[in-house]
Amino acid sequence: MPIKVRQILDMNAFDDSGDPGSGSELLRLRRRNAGAASVLFYREPIEMIRAAGCWMEAADGTKYLDFYNNVPSVGHSHPRVADAVARQVATLNVNSRYLNALTEEYIDRLKATFPSHLENVVLTCSGSEANDLAMRIAMKGSGGTGFIVTETAYHGNTRTVTEISPSALKNGTPPDYVCLVPAPGSAAFGNDIAGGFTKAIDEAIVTLTARGYPLAALICDSIFSSDGVFADPAGFLNGAVDAVHKAGGIYIADEVQPGFARTGEAFWGFARHGVAPDLVTMGKPMGNGYPVAGVAARPDLLAAFCEDVGYFNTFGGTPAAAAAGLSVLDVIEEEGLQENARSIGAYLKTRLMELSNSERRLTAVRGAGLFIGVDLCAEGDPERPDPDLASGAINALRERRVLIGAAGRYGHTLKIRPPLCLSRDEADFFVDALANALAAIPS
Amino acid sequence: MPIKVRQILDMNAFDDSGDPGSGSELLRLRRRNAGAASVLFYREPIEMIRAAGCWMEAADGTKYLDFYNNVPSVGHSHPRVADAVARQVATLNVNSRYLNALTEEYIDRLKATFPSHLENVVLTCSGSEANDLAMRIAMKGSGGTGFIVTETAYHGNTRTVTEISPSALKNGTPPDYVCLVPAPGSAAFGNDIAGGFTKAIDEAIVTLTARGYPLAALICDSIFSSDGVFADPAGFLNGAVDAVHKAGGIYIADEVQPGFARTGEAFWGFARHGVAPDLVTMGKPMGNGYPVAGVAARPDLLAAFCEDVGYFNTFGGTPAAAAAGLSVLDVIEEEGLQENARSIGAYLKTRLMELSNSERRLTAVRGAGLFIGVDLCAEGDPERPDPDLASGAINALRERRVLIGAAGRYGHTLKIRPPLCLSRDEADFFVDALANALAAIPS
Repeated sequence: MPIKVRQILDMNAFDDSGDPGSGSELLRLRRRNAGAASVLFYREPIEMIRAAGCWMEAADGTKYLDFYNNVPSVGHSHPRVADAVARQVATLNVNSRYLNALTEEYIDRLKATFPSHLENVVLTCSGSEANDLAMRIAMKGSGGTGFIVTETAYHGNTRTVTEISPSALKNGTPPDYVCLVPAPGSAAFGNDIAGGFTKAIDEAIVTLTARGYPLAALICDSIFSSDGVFADPAGFLNGAVDAVHKAGGIYIADEVQPGFARTGEAFWGFARHGVAPDLVTMGKPMGNGYPVAGVAARPDLLAAFCEDVGYFNTFGGTPAAAAAGLSVLDVIEEEGLQENARSIGAYLKTRLMELSNSERRLTAVRGAGLFIGVDLCAEGDPERPDPDLASGAINALRERRVLIGAAGRYGHTLKIRPPLCLSRDEADFFVDALANALAAIPS
Repeated sequence: MPIKVRQILDMNAFDDSGDPGSGSELLRLRRRNAGAASVLFYREPIEMIRAAGCWMEAADGTKYLDFYNNVPSVGHSHPRVADAVARQVATLNVNSRYLNALTEEYIDRLKATFPSHLENVVLTCSGSEANDLAMRIAMKGSGGTGFIVTETAYHGNTRTVTEISPSALKNGTPPDYVCLVPAPGSAAFGNDIAGGFTKAIDEAIVTLTARGYPLAALICDSIFSSDGVFADPAGFLNGAVDAVHKAGGIYIADEVQPGFARTGEAFWGFARHGVAPDLVTMGKPMGNGYPVAGVAARPDLLAAFCEDVGYFNTFGGTPAAAAAGLSVLDVIEEEGLQENARSIGAYLKTRLMELSNSERRLTAVRGAGLFIGVDLCAEGDPERPDPDLASGAINALRERRVLIGAAGRYGHTLKIRPPLCLSRDEADFFVDALANALAAIPS
């Protein structure tokens, strides 16, 4: 029997198909307000009331260690970011049609983290808006209309980016202009991950051309988050990017997940692989919760795009967005969070490897910095991904005061993604809770 | 010679085609950072440093009366909103997969302003995301793929909503699935605005069907902001909405511009016309600068949409977004801003009418509440729209410390859209400045 490919919002989602009158008053209110679009975590959803650092506090007083949420990346409610936002919304928060020094200072600081050919930055509100814009810039710049994405990719929620997000589809398949490739690191490629991925890209280019959609772009998240977290060996993207460029296509690095120091070894996920994107999109952790996102672009690509159409984003690059973004960069630097992601991430990985010696259902530990994937398989057989075990572990971890989610084609990969300020003690708390949670679930 | 139809971002934009080394250091930095996507106001862009109420302060100390910016709608840097945001970002700002009471309280408060059939609200970051989602819901709910919009409409910046935003295009025309109709109030309809608009919608439905795109939706901004501001007679949308429903289509009320009490007579623009939308989209003023937007929907439409695809918006409906939105509703209510928009708007309109008696180039004054359009035409001839005069007036008003923009098919309509807390003295300040500015421009 083939294993069901998981739809990303399914994993660990609250199942609301039962009695609409059940649950707490707040849950019933939520149901009435959000209707079918409500997406809640856990069999019994949690009401949160406050959060600080790596910890979130529920209405019943329970404190949870957050190993899931990569938006408040420098720590929940970080006072430095909160102060910067508070000061700016009380002073000036207006669209970017007027000059303001803070926004340009922020873009300058951001640009200093990029290869020098990415001279322009367009700020938006969300990673979805950033990817939507990047796709349009890529089509204009390449003259092509075809896109290559990985099999379980997620790139956002607008109509256009949903079309290149197979994991968002509940029914059907992506349109013909989208060609799917396995993520590098998938079993499909065996031991030659770089070579296999390059070959898959070459074939996808041929397929798209044959379908009448010459290549516009390869877009991928360089940590392959929703595919199940694939990080090694560093450099596995090089051949693929060369193939894309040779075909006249654009390489879009979607850094919404790995960006902003999370992978520890570099500030950007693509930098870990030593590749040079034509466009970089970013979002989630950028403002630590304040909506900030954007596209870094080669100026020639942006100029070509702007010939045909006006682009203006009302909430993009406002002074408050810039204040949030700047304070995040300050905190990453001053608190040494990239180094912390590297060192605590390495420690966490080592401890998880150790755990896999005694817990055979834990069949793989992958990742970089504080972005780690842990596979759970039946009877320790890597061929038997066990999403039910993952789901059981997620709920058992919740009972042990740890919040975590799952990812991957079969939903059997625990996605480890705590705030970057995670301490060694907190890493230990997690590993002990995971060991304990798995021990409580019979094989 | 036909009059050139204006591209919306052209109007009053800084012309950056000259020497890239010119201008202030900040302007040169902006140019390098934003590249071709930079959109700035004025022949000489203004650097802003702070703002409060209806006034903005530039770096050189000049204070400007803001008659343009409809995002900080309850007043720039309103302390109540700033405090609410500050408190929340320091406490909890996390995605909506956990329950939080503030978000549900906000949606409940919002829903109380809508007709009761709009039971569900999906919160997003921007009006663009809201319109993008509404189009997808409409396609699924109607089974159609064709859209009707007005000739100079603007509905946002994603790939999909740009296709239904003719005013965003610098070259070319919208795709075939989009059919354009003149805005109600355009000269095209003579005195029977309601009848003419209904007929235009009926014809558009036939055209779309003939092109192979049966109707999905009519989407319009009920104040027709970018078409040049058309408000009267109230009720002119009724026949059009009936025609859309009869054809199995969806009526999407884009309330990004007229919503949140701006038109004075009602909280929503569609309510002024007594029509019942199937979907309502909202944005700009919703969080007074904090990125908040959303779609209010009939539950059956939302449920049908969610059958095929998962929709999740990371920054949509976070506690900070809800705090911003709630405080905006509080301020509108406690400071009586809807009534202020009605009464000061009426006063402003009367004073502008008076001015038109002595200044014949001011050929029309239209609008509702604090959303008013003023046409400027050569030699007082309504057949000779004068965008150069509008541009001259905008710059002359800037010298007189008033910020304002233009709109309309020919760019000859001054768009009056101050914060809703505008006082009678500030209204006088504006009218006197406008009289003075026009007097300084030779006929």
